[in-house]
Amino acid sequence: MTSIQPLTSPSIALDEDTITGFAEMFDPQPYHLNREAADASIFGGLCASGWQVAALSSRLTGEALATANIAYVTTTQVSSMRWLRPTFVDDQLIAKVTPGELSSGSPVPGCNTLAVQVAIEDGDQQAVAEMHCLVAVDGETQG
Amino acid sequence: MTSIQPLTSPSIALDEDTITGFAEMFDPQPYHLNREAADASIFGGLCASGWQVAALSSRLTGEALATANIAYVTTTQVSSMRWLRPTFVDDQLIAKVTPGELSSGSPVPGCNTLAVQVAIEDGDQQAVAEMHCLVAVDGETQG
Repeated sequence: MTSIQPLTSPSIALDEDTITGFAEMFDPQPYHLNREAADASIFGGLCASGWQVAALSSRLTGEALATANIAYVTTTQVSSMRWLRPTFVDDQLIAKVTPGELSSGSPVPGCNTLAVQVAIEDGDQQAVAEMHCLVAVDGETQG
Repeated sequence: MTSIQPLTSPSIALDEDTITGFAEMFDPQPYHLNREAADASIFGGLCASGWQVAALSSRLTGEALATANIAYVTTTQVSSMRWLRPTFVDDQLIAKVTPGELSSGSPVPGCNTLAVQVAIEDGDQQAVAEMHCLVAVDGETQG
């Protein structure tokens, strides 16, 4: 990678059913489950579980890396993750991914390890979440 | 908290439809999507996205803390997370949660912050994932 510009993903939004369906299974808090309860909550509206945002961030990371022909396979380790702002219904999220060091080998056979810094932003370019991760990339990826 | 024994959650398993449904939306890898492709993959069977395991871990963390009357609200920050072993269909996962320092205040209004160390194990007591997190707990929780 010669560029230090972050790689940018397409945007994806979460609709109401997707947010509430995830929350029923994994994060049954009123502000993730029910619009009226959410409106009255500290967040002021129905918003996605942070873990749903994290999972979406992982998908967007793969899509951002693909714009530089880096074949993302999976995230193998998270060294930090913070949620900065709630994600409401239909917020358009993008990932801005800055690739770091590429090293040989990975817990995933046939892959190498790439360090990435991921910033998730909403449609108003407000910071939603940030992660530092190690990801497995296809062994053909060149540094 | 006077105990240094970890708090243990009930167990939860993920069925095939839950695993493939999550993967279609967030982590479309062959070994998360299709049983035959998964059997032929490096994991040797259909297994859950690591982010689905992470979300489930968060729910189990809340359930483990509840056994000590600690009212978990949400995870606010992850300082490390590692996946150690795949989670296959119907694997019974539990969380063993070791509460750490309790400090005043939280990004979530009305809450305090509790550091937790979380070990996720399968039914054979094999380590599946481990996390160090800060979680928001109800402001009534006493250290």
